[in-house]
Amino acid sequence: MSFDVLQDQIKAKKNPTAAILGAGPDDIPPHILNKHTAQYGETLEAAAEAALEFHLGLIDALADIVPAVELSCARFEALGWRGMRALETVIAYAKEKGLFVIADGKRADLGGSAAAYSAAWLGETRVGETACPVFNADCVTLSGYMGSDAVNPFLKDCAQRNKCAFVLARTPNPSSREFQDLVSGDRQVYTAMGDLIQRWGRDTAGKYGYQILGAVVGNAQPNLLKQLRRRLDKTFFLVTGCVTQEGLSADVRWAFDELGRGAMISDSRSILRAWKKAGGDGTDYQDAARDAAEQVRDELRRLITIF
Amino acid sequence: MSFDVLQDQIKAKKNPTAAILGAGPDDIPPHILNKHTAQYGETLEAAAEAALEFHLGLIDALADIVPAVELSCARFEALGWRGMRALETVIAYAKEKGLFVIADGKRADLGGSAAAYSAAWLGETRVGETACPVFNADCVTLSGYMGSDAVNPFLKDCAQRNKCAFVLARTPNPSSREFQDLVSGDRQVYTAMGDLIQRWGRDTAGKYGYQILGAVVGNAQPNLLKQLRRRLDKTFFLVTGCVTQEGLSADVRWAFDELGRGAMISDSRSILRAWKKAGGDGTDYQDAARDAAEQVRDELRRLITIF
Repeated sequence: MSFDVLQDQIKAKKNPTAAILGAGPDDIPPHILNKHTAQYGETLEAAAEAALEFHLGLIDALADIVPAVELSCARFEALGWRGMRALETVIAYAKEKGLFVIADGKRADLGGSAAAYSAAWLGETRVGETACPVFNADCVTLSGYMGSDAVNPFLKDCAQRNKCAFVLARTPNPSSREFQDLVSGDRQVYTAMGDLIQRWGRDTAGKYGYQILGAVVGNAQPNLLKQLRRRLDKTFFLVTGCVTQEGLSADVRWAFDELGRGAMISDSRSILRAWKKAGGDGTDYQDAARDAAEQVRDELRRLITIF
Repeated sequence: MSFDVLQDQIKAKKNPTAAILGAGPDDIPPHILNKHTAQYGETLEAAAEAALEFHLGLIDALADIVPAVELSCARFEALGWRGMRALETVIAYAKEKGLFVIADGKRADLGGSAAAYSAAWLGETRVGETACPVFNADCVTLSGYMGSDAVNPFLKDCAQRNKCAFVLARTPNPSSREFQDLVSGDRQVYTAMGDLIQRWGRDTAGKYGYQILGAVVGNAQPNLLKQLRRRLDKTFFLVTGCVTQEGLSADVRWAFDELGRGAMISDSRSILRAWKKAGGDGTDYQDAARDAAEQVRDELRRLITIF
């Protein structure tokens, strides 16, 4: 089962970091954007070509440091179909370089449309008698609001193709409390969602004890990660919102089990944007990204020992 | 405010139906698919070209009958970037023909990624000094699980560009009750979401009294639509799951206000798939779609008078 694949990669690199890829308009170094606008004008075509070059360069810089990349689908979609074409290439390149690819699309739908999303990101689309892989990531993020009908088509593809998925449970943004912190019986709504995630994934645990359906949990409140880790003992976590201006929050250690497994930390774009923090013109963006990735990794190694 | 635009179109055509577009592998008539696989083989390229031809044909057939089309983003995404390119063309063509375009993507994200999704579907992406429209629909569907942080970027684009959005409240699928029917205080979770939707959209009511943030509500239980219509008096509804094998459920009338406004019925693909029900080879798919669309419209006219 596929969190095994991810956990193996984390162990091999002694690093439970997923580097976020997916650039906003100001994240791409000017020398790259200017090269493509010189050719195509200030168009989505130029932006997509620039995004492609930037992300392939980041993958080259990061492939021996991080085990996984988390691709923000939104940032590519904002560049239209040309952005989605770039995304397909970025995913294929990251996999070629041995990286585990999480497509962070937060997708969900019902019936045939849910199956279509699953085909797009994890599975294959049938054309006549031929099954065609599409974006072909290793993992996706999902919304569970519509219930198991929205999740099951992904579970089927995960089981058949050794892949996995994360469902949003507790996100780290301030307004998440408007809905996720509502109380239902003796639980908050995000805990109810966590319980559903563990139930939807039942009977799929792999060699490390984690099921093919994981949860996105934000480092939002003291004790949140500790409580969820205890309660959702078979659920792999993607932990978001834990890298701030001050660095990595020490609370993230509670997302891991006693063997340092069962969780991965999302880097909050500190790697992608490292060249901006460094204050240069961005021509050194690969070195800056490497340095930032090594810094997050080394901080995590001080907090967690991975067995 | 933009539900005014939709309500005006509904009034003009005396028809509150949104026709779902977005074909699965078996929805495209064989003569269309075969033409493109003969040229491109059984590839995503062939599937995307076939989807494009089929949907442009449907739009030609439907443009004078329905006021709106609801495009299932998943079905185009399952064809990869070529599917997204087809979707861009389909959206532009539908708008050219005077149709109101709902992109049914059920999108949501946080921060810059939420803004990126909004740019993709409703707004513009900046490239250098130039603002580039992307998919440029009139309306999108969203998930509200992450709270107002995930919705506000869309509200901003809606307000600036006279557009609107629907957030999932109660979906009609069997498993929606696993989560949406949980009880929190004196409300079910879907009612809490409905209350949030009306609150997030406050102070944006247009000439018909409806705010720019609407709700997706399924015709799932007796009295559900009646209760929600009374409670969410400023929230426009997109009503799903109400066209079955037996035809249109009479309960949909309760989704409308006393002037027959404030709601639109999603046709459950009865129009897109009408050629299959007719039992022919699909060469008459346009006539079949027109007939089906007229049938849904006429049934609605018997239930509701739109002022």
